[in-house]
Amino acid sequence: MHMPHLIEKKKDGRALKEEELRWIVRGITDGSIPDYQISALCMAIYFRGMNDEEIAVLTDEMAHSGDMIDLSCFGSLSVDKHSTGGVGDKTTLIIAPLVAACGAKVAKMSGRGLGHTGGTIDKLESIPGYRVELGEEEFLRITREVGVCVIGQSGELAPADKRLYALRDVTSTVDTIPLIVSSIMSKKLAAGAKSIVLDVTVGSGAFMKTVPEAVNLAEKMVAIGRACGRNISALITDMSEPLGYAIGNSLEVKEALAVLKGVMGGDLKEVCLALAGEMLSLSLEMTPEEGLDLARQTLESGAAYEKAKEWIAAQGGDVSYLEEPERFPVAEFVEDVISPESGYIAAMDTEEIGHSACHLGAGRKTKADEIDMAAGIMLCAKIGDFVEKGDVLATLYTNQEESLSESLKRYPMAITFSKDPVEKPALIHRIIR
Amino acid sequence: MHMPHLIEKKKDGRALKEEELRWIVRGITDGSIPDYQISALCMAIYFRGMNDEEIAVLTDEMAHSGDMIDLSCFGSLSVDKHSTGGVGDKTTLIIAPLVAACGAKVAKMSGRGLGHTGGTIDKLESIPGYRVELGEEEFLRITREVGVCVIGQSGELAPADKRLYALRDVTSTVDTIPLIVSSIMSKKLAAGAKSIVLDVTVGSGAFMKTVPEAVNLAEKMVAIGRACGRNISALITDMSEPLGYAIGNSLEVKEALAVLKGVMGGDLKEVCLALAGEMLSLSLEMTPEEGLDLARQTLESGAAYEKAKEWIAAQGGDVSYLEEPERFPVAEFVEDVISPESGYIAAMDTEEIGHSACHLGAGRKTKADEIDMAAGIMLCAKIGDFVEKGDVLATLYTNQEESLSESLKRYPMAITFSKDPVEKPALIHRIIR
Repeated sequence: MHMPHLIEKKKDGRALKEEELRWIVRGITDGSIPDYQISALCMAIYFRGMNDEEIAVLTDEMAHSGDMIDLSCFGSLSVDKHSTGGVGDKTTLIIAPLVAACGAKVAKMSGRGLGHTGGTIDKLESIPGYRVELGEEEFLRITREVGVCVIGQSGELAPADKRLYALRDVTSTVDTIPLIVSSIMSKKLAAGAKSIVLDVTVGSGAFMKTVPEAVNLAEKMVAIGRACGRNISALITDMSEPLGYAIGNSLEVKEALAVLKGVMGGDLKEVCLALAGEMLSLSLEMTPEEGLDLARQTLESGAAYEKAKEWIAAQGGDVSYLEEPERFPVAEFVEDVISPESGYIAAMDTEEIGHSACHLGAGRKTKADEIDMAAGIMLCAKIGDFVEKGDVLATLYTNQEESLSESLKRYPMAITFSKDPVEKPALIHRIIR
Repeated sequence: MHMPHLIEKKKDGRALKEEELRWIVRGITDGSIPDYQISALCMAIYFRGMNDEEIAVLTDEMAHSGDMIDLSCFGSLSVDKHSTGGVGDKTTLIIAPLVAACGAKVAKMSGRGLGHTGGTIDKLESIPGYRVELGEEEFLRITREVGVCVIGQSGELAPADKRLYALRDVTSTVDTIPLIVSSIMSKKLAAGAKSIVLDVTVGSGAFMKTVPEAVNLAEKMVAIGRACGRNISALITDMSEPLGYAIGNSLEVKEALAVLKGVMGGDLKEVCLALAGEMLSLSLEMTPEEGLDLARQTLESGAAYEKAKEWIAAQGGDVSYLEEPERFPVAEFVEDVISPESGYIAAMDTEEIGHSACHLGAGRKTKADEIDMAAGIMLCAKIGDFVEKGDVLATLYTNQEESLSESLKRYPMAITFSKDPVEKPALIHRIIR
């Protein structure tokens, strides 16, 4: 094998053979292929694409490039969910105890990640005492006994993806469907769950900006998962505005608790029910309608909230924070964003709103950054809502006073007003099974 | 400036701005932009191309990335020639003294290079005593007094190109017109001549396989040169078979001497006259016809040969080798390639024949390889010639007995025979002025 020839082959639009792709992934993993050849190949893949067979082989070899979590002890009950990312996405905090309360098993490794807010693990760490580092034995025991356990990534899941993603990130080759598919699916396959539900977001706050793009991505991922023997489906969910009203770590935990306690409905609850229903349908072998009914009933009965307390307690978290969310520290500086005009909210630049939250301290710009758990944004109005000039559009929370003025200025610019009434966006655009 | 944004911009098919390109070239030169970003950009350029303005800026900044040779003391008389490469290309050895004998000034830095044979400098070094390393003062003095001086590259001409080319070579991004143009032209501009004639080869032994491709490349290079204030034209010359009959270092020197002495005509002589005529037309301000006439007259009068002796002597070379070329050492193993069939030679895989010469020891596969000055191939038949089965197709020369058998086997496979008569290829396909 000779890397320049393989780059040339892809550059010329020809498909790479199975043994060529496996050789490349092994070279990425062990470092024997230099970065400059990998990045040139990624750019050629951006322009030439890959066929389904190439993507399947690439994903499989990447999944096997490191540890493979063995969840076979849970048979068909183990279930996982993956979101392609969005602003205000706190669904795992609700869905994980919800499906566990129904008998499914959620043994989840979750990342910290860079972004507008921290990852699920960061959000969970805002609960004092919550332990994100558990040994494999304890991880499996809690999953078996409680039904849910969420820890930080330990060991090396798909190290080939880690190196490849870091390189794609700095060479402008992230937005490449075959590489997105293999990146996500290699990690999901290594993470071991028998059933997987993909939450593919679409809209101004998502990576995919249009429904057809999102459907294309989702279909490819579902095909790979199925070819690898997993039960899998994908929901195309809306991200044309933030999900729910809270953006920021402990702000999102509080909002998730409100849904779990039944005191809050709306888009966040409905999206969580749709995802959880699908997860139950796959893992408990019921129809999607039965799954959705069971999810709704379990959430509304309070059983999901009870399971959440049991879960957090099992991982050492202080459950009193769940019972009295007012115990979470509030940011020192709290300021309202005032609407500069009257009208219906027609569109939100969700990514820009996410950047504002990050600027206030809710997220990391580089790996080394500290997250401010109390920082973030609480929306007061979303698409379709009517606001009067002078009404509060959102409330900003931060411990860095100097970041307030810029966010106060930028937030209204992310909002498009309309004199005419505007419909609320659909929450679930498509389901791919 | 942020390199991932610039890669993205090119990836999306947008033109890079002048200040962006200059920043990139400076980052390539000083090493501040990592290889993996440069190679991703090169691949994006392969797919998206560059407009003429981008190529001009890229070339200009690359030319200025290192030393710029100052030949302004020769006014409009300084003239250079550059070939895009071929097999059996020994034109510099003939043309340099020829145009110098007419009053033009050839102050040339030449590379060693990798390839089927050594570079011009290697060929000159086969003459005992020839000094390739001269200080700037001596380089300019010999040019002034003799009219021609050819030395190895000293200092750093276009170091940005050096790094970029090394990277393109291992990432399959060599065949990219904007990068070929800027690579060649940045070095030519840095080399300082006021007039430049480009020899753009086309055919089975050249980088460009078709005349339209070669014309496209030539037109872009001529446009750049003109925009930078040089007198410039390009000849599209044929490389569907080796030029002349000799491939190999001292074999080529001997063939060049035969042309200079007037004992050999044919394609090599005619191509040299066309190139020299064009060089004279640009540097001595005459019509192309007058240039060609002067070149022919100077070659056929023996004045070019006398100038060659003067030149080689001025650089310390033993002129007796020019007078008695039989003094050049002959390879230990000399074997004929016998024609396996009768017929007209219809085509030659010239690149493959070049590889055979290299395999016999005439060229370097890696920078560290030693060149065998006596190794190479003498053709006995070229396109259009009729050969009988059993006739000699070529004679192989080597000092490595073990490389003979493979070359004996491979040479006939590079020849396509025809039962019907075949026309000899045109030597000059187009002239771009």
